[in-house]
Amino acid sequence: MRINTPSNTPVVVVPAHAERHFEGSEAVRDIVLGMADGLTVPFALAAGISGAIDPALASSFGRGTALIVTAGLAEIAAGSIAMGLGGYLAARAEREHYEAERRREEAEIIEKPAHERREIVEIMETYGVSAEDTAPLIAALERNPARWRDFMMRFELGLEEPDPRRARRSAATIASAYVVGGLVPLLPYLFIDVVPRALSVSIVVTLIALFGFGWLKGRYTGTRPITSALQTFVIGGLAAAAAFVIARLVS
Amino acid sequence: MRINTPSNTPVVVVPAHAERHFEGSEAVRDIVLGMADGLTVPFALAAGISGAIDPALASSFGRGTALIVTAGLAEIAAGSIAMGLGGYLAARAEREHYEAERRREEAEIIEKPAHERREIVEIMETYGVSAEDTAPLIAALERNPARWRDFMMRFELGLEEPDPRRARRSAATIASAYVVGGLVPLLPYLFIDVVPRALSVSIVVTLIALFGFGWLKGRYTGTRPITSALQTFVIGGLAAAAAFVIARLVS
Repeated sequence: MRINTPSNTPVVVVPAHAERHFEGSEAVRDIVLGMADGLTVPFALAAGISGAIDPALASSFGRGTALIVTAGLAEIAAGSIAMGLGGYLAARAEREHYEAERRREEAEIIEKPAHERREIVEIMETYGVSAEDTAPLIAALERNPARWRDFMMRFELGLEEPDPRRARRSAATIASAYVVGGLVPLLPYLFIDVVPRALSVSIVVTLIALFGFGWLKGRYTGTRPITSALQTFVIGGLAAAAAFVIARLVS
Repeated sequence: MRINTPSNTPVVVVPAHAERHFEGSEAVRDIVLGMADGLTVPFALAAGISGAIDPALASSFGRGTALIVTAGLAEIAAGSIAMGLGGYLAARAEREHYEAERRREEAEIIEKPAHERREIVEIMETYGVSAEDTAPLIAALERNPARWRDFMMRFELGLEEPDPRRARRSAATIASAYVVGGLVPLLPYLFIDVVPRALSVSIVVTLIALFGFGWLKGRYTGTRPITSALQTFVIGGLAAAAAFVIARLVS
């Protein structure tokens, strides 16, 4: 049977799955990763310490808020480094893994081609394609070992080649997003010098930021914006409430 | 050409790629994710606050360490909730994305099969397989639309079906690992009531834990254990040093 693609069928220039590529955009994913934690954890920590410190210290002009700003900035430094370097190592490990697997596939194609051929047959059989119908495909791959190897990487292992520059870019993006997100809940403590009032402003400002961030995140990742906005809002609120209660219980 | 798989070839019971499956093990990945941050951020925060608080408070029995324990527990509560719920939502979004794409492929196979056939030809052409050699494969897929759809999911989009129970399990695993990791650096502050001494013990205990965790992580993920151990050690150390310096500068 011939494939039914008449030559007068126009080539679709805008692919139907365009948003899929954007959705997978690594920069967006890294910003979301860093900012989600950056907006949440320093916010919750600041709320937690606000709930725990001495009432006298809390209403003493500047002293209570200075402590919270100090702890908050320490958290932002620690969190952004931990997440940024973590992202760097994850991206590097992914690349090393890909290269190791590619070397292995290369060796297997040379050393045990019969086994590799059988793997293709088995994969295609799970989709109801018989060994006979797979034979021309295998014969074509055998004429070009490099492409055979790439075929096995994608279709046997489901691995795509990672971008070599990804690790460094990923680390910088995650860390910066964490810092930007983390400064939002701390700013009120810098400008308002009594803790309870700074805490109220921080809660309002950060919950708005969480809502807006969730909304944008939803738009770029394909979740409904309102759902996504409510999710980040609830996570940030829960984390801050838990931190507040636990800090108050132990102090 | 027939496929060369003589029927007397023994079936390989232990697959050559066994570690690959373990490497991808989702529970291990979730534990690593939670514990890496859990060991690092509360440790760095405690070090940061230790460096920032008043010398008089630091050496006052119990008062300085109580502050650090409070802030540390608040951080653990916030961090574990933020990471756990974040993992939950990420897993759920992945599943929703998969299902949406599957519905789309299903519709496309019914509404524009010629376009889908052409997509298969284009994919295979990138591996040097001609349209003619792909024809029997396409014909076989056309006889079974559900498998054709599954084939497109895997081979066009590179998506594998996520486990529906993954989201909840993932959240619990990440959060628990974060709590366990986060308690390690805090324990010395619970048992030693002068800050500088508690800080020293916390640094030693946590760096050993980071080294050991990195070693195990390397063993399970395929990185060389010593490389992995040094990486987590350095990340934890850097994050704590940065938090210490920043907290001291602003206080």
